[in-house]
Amino acid sequence: MSESEFQPTERTQVKRLPKRGHYDRETVYGILDSAFVCHVGFSVGGQPYVIPTNYGRTEDTIYVHGSAASRMLKTLSGGVPVCVTVTHVDGLVLARSAFHHSVNYRSVVILGTARLVEQPAEKMEALRLFTEHVMKGRWDDVRQPTEQELKATTVLAIPLEEVSAKVRTGGPVDEEVDYSLPVWAGVLPLETVAKEPVPDAMRKNDPPLPDYLKNHLR
Amino acid sequence: MSESEFQPTERTQVKRLPKRGHYDRETVYGILDSAFVCHVGFSVGGQPYVIPTNYGRTEDTIYVHGSAASRMLKTLSGGVPVCVTVTHVDGLVLARSAFHHSVNYRSVVILGTARLVEQPAEKMEALRLFTEHVMKGRWDDVRQPTEQELKATTVLAIPLEEVSAKVRTGGPVDEEVDYSLPVWAGVLPLETVAKEPVPDAMRKNDPPLPDYLKNHLR
Repeated sequence: MSESEFQPTERTQVKRLPKRGHYDRETVYGILDSAFVCHVGFSVGGQPYVIPTNYGRTEDTIYVHGSAASRMLKTLSGGVPVCVTVTHVDGLVLARSAFHHSVNYRSVVILGTARLVEQPAEKMEALRLFTEHVMKGRWDDVRQPTEQELKATTVLAIPLEEVSAKVRTGGPVDEEVDYSLPVWAGVLPLETVAKEPVPDAMRKNDPPLPDYLKNHLR
Repeated sequence: MSESEFQPTERTQVKRLPKRGHYDRETVYGILDSAFVCHVGFSVGGQPYVIPTNYGRTEDTIYVHGSAASRMLKTLSGGVPVCVTVTHVDGLVLARSAFHHSVNYRSVVILGTARLVEQPAEKMEALRLFTEHVMKGRWDDVRQPTEQELKATTVLAIPLEEVSAKVRTGGPVDEEVDYSLPVWAGVLPLETVAKEPVPDAMRKNDPPLPDYLKNHLR
């Protein structure tokens, strides 16, 4: 196990279809850094909740944040077990049998416990990460958080320790006898694309579209 | 409360930013029917897990399915509390302050308990739903499940009872004093699009691209 690999545990080892399991940092970082919405799982009174939210990553830490008033943030600040999942859907896999239809995807599952970020400098740095994670170059362009805004925001750090990735790529895998069926089979690739930016109707002194946004569109 | 509304409960009522909460079937069905990947949350030994999977809907039931060997399916078959979340990310909301950056999204959160579908006819109908949910017209074109394939598949039904939707649309909402800042503000719309279909390299008797796939691309 090289240093660039996460150590699989009983809970993160992909058991069924083990070839889809990946534990190397390159794969995990790649999936985390090319999305910005994760699904956070936690339990309250025995009921699991799954809530979509933004995140940012630096090294082996991801940060999530939100209003200090949010139930999710309040619950997770209490140090309960959490699961953070990030998923890219890359395509529909259309097989010759209904049974072998599948989806090409890349996902990361992070298990752990969140740590409340209290130190203002780390909190500010996490907020910079969120902004830069969504759009590189944006942070230096916008008004940065005031002390009051910092206080109104809860930031949580979740260590990348118990982590696994799952990846499916490629075409359909059909039963041998089905390959001769007269059915179109293959992959329909899916991609998330940015469309033409919509300027704020309330604009007063807004400059033209900044370069970092133009670059983002490429 | 009309019949076309789900009754919000203590657990599904959107308390913070209540204007984003929706409980009407039209909104909930619309979000569920225009996605095909959900994130399923469940706990094992106090640890929450969030796993992406496919689903289908008919009336007030959603179905999820998978290998009978999967931990998720085995756990949920035991009648434990589950949360199913479906999220569309519609755009980045770029405000003049870092604090007011946001995301336009539509999400549905379903709380409940899964029921194992054992009756073969309902199971087959659920499999038809999955296939048709992903691509309308596909089911009649492909080889349908054998008895053995049906046995190897676990299908779970989750009732739409405790359900809420959250929707954010529109441009940034900045602090009054920030509107005059020289910062480009607005929305970067995001959309998931299908690219050119990739025929299976193993094709033998595959016909040309079927009409339902061409229609899907429009």
